[in-house]
Amino acid sequence: MFSDIAEFHAWYADRCRAQPYRTWRVALDDLDGWFTDPTTGNLVHRTGRFFSVEGLDVTRSGRAVEAWQQPIILQPERGVLGILVKEFDGVPHCLLQVKMEPGNVNGFQLSPTVQATRSNFTGVHGGKAVPYLEHFVSPRSGRVLSDVFQSEQASWFLAKRNRNMIVQVAADADVPLLEDFCWLSFDQVATLLATPNLVNMDTRTVLAGAASGRLLVGRDALAGDPAGDTFRGALARSWEDEDSLHATVELLSWFTEAKGRCTLAREVVPLSKIDGWSHRDGELVHDRDQHFSVIGVGVETSSREVAHWQQPMFEPRSRGVIAFLVRRVRGVLHLLVQARIETGAFDGVEMAPTVQCQPDNYSGLTQDHAPLFLSAVLEAPPERIRFDSVHSEEGGRFHHAQNRYLLIEVEEDFPLEVPENYTWITLRQLTEFVRYGNHLNVEARSLLTFLGFYKEDDA
Amino acid sequence: MFSDIAEFHAWYADRCRAQPYRTWRVALDDLDGWFTDPTTGNLVHRTGRFFSVEGLDVTRSGRAVEAWQQPIILQPERGVLGILVKEFDGVPHCLLQVKMEPGNVNGFQLSPTVQATRSNFTGVHGGKAVPYLEHFVSPRSGRVLSDVFQSEQASWFLAKRNRNMIVQVAADADVPLLEDFCWLSFDQVATLLATPNLVNMDTRTVLAGAASGRLLVGRDALAGDPAGDTFRGALARSWEDEDSLHATVELLSWFTEAKGRCTLAREVVPLSKIDGWSHRDGELVHDRDQHFSVIGVGVETSSREVAHWQQPMFEPRSRGVIAFLVRRVRGVLHLLVQARIETGAFDGVEMAPTVQCQPDNYSGLTQDHAPLFLSAVLEAPPERIRFDSVHSEEGGRFHHAQNRYLLIEVEEDFPLEVPENYTWITLRQLTEFVRYGNHLNVEARSLLTFLGFYKEDDA
Repeated sequence: MFSDIAEFHAWYADRCRAQPYRTWRVALDDLDGWFTDPTTGNLVHRTGRFFSVEGLDVTRSGRAVEAWQQPIILQPERGVLGILVKEFDGVPHCLLQVKMEPGNVNGFQLSPTVQATRSNFTGVHGGKAVPYLEHFVSPRSGRVLSDVFQSEQASWFLAKRNRNMIVQVAADADVPLLEDFCWLSFDQVATLLATPNLVNMDTRTVLAGAASGRLLVGRDALAGDPAGDTFRGALARSWEDEDSLHATVELLSWFTEAKGRCTLAREVVPLSKIDGWSHRDGELVHDRDQHFSVIGVGVETSSREVAHWQQPMFEPRSRGVIAFLVRRVRGVLHLLVQARIETGAFDGVEMAPTVQCQPDNYSGLTQDHAPLFLSAVLEAPPERIRFDSVHSEEGGRFHHAQNRYLLIEVEEDFPLEVPENYTWITLRQLTEFVRYGNHLNVEARSLLTFLGFYKEDDA
Repeated sequence: MFSDIAEFHAWYADRCRAQPYRTWRVALDDLDGWFTDPTTGNLVHRTGRFFSVEGLDVTRSGRAVEAWQQPIILQPERGVLGILVKEFDGVPHCLLQVKMEPGNVNGFQLSPTVQATRSNFTGVHGGKAVPYLEHFVSPRSGRVLSDVFQSEQASWFLAKRNRNMIVQVAADADVPLLEDFCWLSFDQVATLLATPNLVNMDTRTVLAGAASGRLLVGRDALAGDPAGDTFRGALARSWEDEDSLHATVELLSWFTEAKGRCTLAREVVPLSKIDGWSHRDGELVHDRDQHFSVIGVGVETSSREVAHWQQPMFEPRSRGVIAFLVRRVRGVLHLLVQARIETGAFDGVEMAPTVQCQPDNYSGLTQDHAPLFLSAVLEAPPERIRFDSVHSEEGGRFHHAQNRYLLIEVEEDFPLEVPENYTWITLRQLTEFVRYGNHLNVEARSLLTFLGFYKEDDA
């Protein structure tokens, strides 16, 4: 336990220093342990396990660009992302881990208690057992607070899902604290979420379940003055959801309607056959230098179950913007949610932030081609910005994938009438959708976590 | 409107008589409009549309039989099943349709207001416009009461889903009543649900959304004496769900856990390559005469948008049993729900009735091989049977597919501890799962409808 955040940061810096590591670029053709299938050009591990990089042919997308081809990660096995919770002196704490991932821009980030693929369970890595895993596999002694399969980045993964779990053990349970792990209270987590590139994507998506499980209700920072005409008051009322603009049945129908409109067709094709991508300097790059590249990375570390390995990774060509526009409606905060056709999503359409894109992809184009509401986000006056921090996507598959996450509160004259793919949803309603899985994409879940852990003194 | 049920039956008989039809068997090779693909042996329509019959290779099923191959229907396009609701003198009525389907054992059954494939919308049939469809496509004037994509028979369809909708129009809306349509109150529907093979599968699955939308709460038959120690009282309390055995988060975790255990792998293969099936007398039959056959059927009718056609159909070899065991727990009715690995289900696992099988498939086997709880259903004493009626599956794809639907109330000494794939769920909890789709299979939804419309005077 840390008596204050400075103490945490000192410990964290110490743990990072104690685990030297090194990463370097490797040409895709030279990746140790991986080979390019001579028939398909697909990148596969010599064991046939972990994941592969193949081609995806997308047609009838219903997006600004109707059809394209791209590399995609296929990782059929589903893992567990789990956070253990335990009360200390009546205050719930999360068990988080300082973990190196080769794609992290800063090497280390705070990971969930357990971040394990099925290969981890079954020892394919030839590594050590996953600590604390026993709390997340059946039969378990703790109480499940949240447990659902959730999607991950659908632009880069095909139908990947991980099991997101929060398990609370009894206050008197004996949980040994291993070297790189720490207990953090929800309030401490809230503070750390404002630090750029610290709380990793896996932690953020699992914590969305904490919001969903209403674990955060009653947190001091949220309690606020529920009657007050403040952002915090509107946020608190949005968790309670007594006065939403749309009934849940209307939102479910809006989502069903969007799925009904979706004509997306996708087909896995050989990586060597995709149009618009070329091999250059040992990487697979987009011909207009947009979107992302497939690169090779080598790793040496003292801290992971395996001391060195090499792997392909996806590296975005530019920083993304992921933002919700939020608005008070009758004093209750509503989020402008998008029913987004997601290339790799299990069911084709998921609920997404208002804006989710790489602005650089549109820099040469006229305003007409830019995503809806992007200018409202990028041109928001500073006093309307409620949250603004850069965070990373998963450093095990993505290399230096940073996104700017924003919450922008628009004025109350912002139109409530929005295009058919958008609607206004309260936090209470969104958390219900999170519970059932297959509804919110990972980017929306990250933003939901920022709202769930919102603190006014974040800065 | 009908003043009593006898009046309905007279009208119904009259409507059936007014629409002569004829069906006959056709050898698969001779089906007009269909051909057997010379490379794959798949049965496909000459336009490439509607549906196809292909092969499915199933491995690692986690069921009593681990691996098998079978014919399967692929119907990628999603249709709309919609029921229009309107109040007359303050009483909500459903608009249902007398409709012939070639697979119906009795020719005609009561269908939803709209039962339309995308081919219907777009005129592929070369037929007439679908009446009332305008109420179910956007923008619509009515109020949506239920709107969700739901799965259909996962033993026979691969990942088929239809949009299930209930739309209520204003009491003063002008809705012309076409010849084969009728308005029925929920109470009249409840009475008709006890008549064998009358209310078709599509109507039953849409009506599960009525239960879910809590349209039925307040129905006289359900109101009962909530304090009474009666089945009806336990049922009424189960809709209210103030005292469920398991919290919803535990049920969601149980369902996630079952999905996590599922290792099901399935691959579409050429129909000509499947093991265990043979062509005999113009049909494709199972070598041990079990499960179902693929047959060809010809139709002539005066009542449908197309006057005659031929098509392949699936015909079960024996009658199935679909049953929930239900039990009072602290005076609240709980259903014994199975997390069932479903061959063709979109997500591999769905919530299913306690028992769902063709008992004849197990007749030569010892008790050990029979499905769990089958004997508890088949040997239930008559006084524990709360519902028992034979109903049909969809007559547009399935030929004479009848199942015996049962609700058996077990004694209060029936163990609450059940195997890991089963759990006890209240009606209120199940209806929440129905709202979000991808949770309950079509058989469970039918039984939910029988419970939602339960009447003591059904007999």
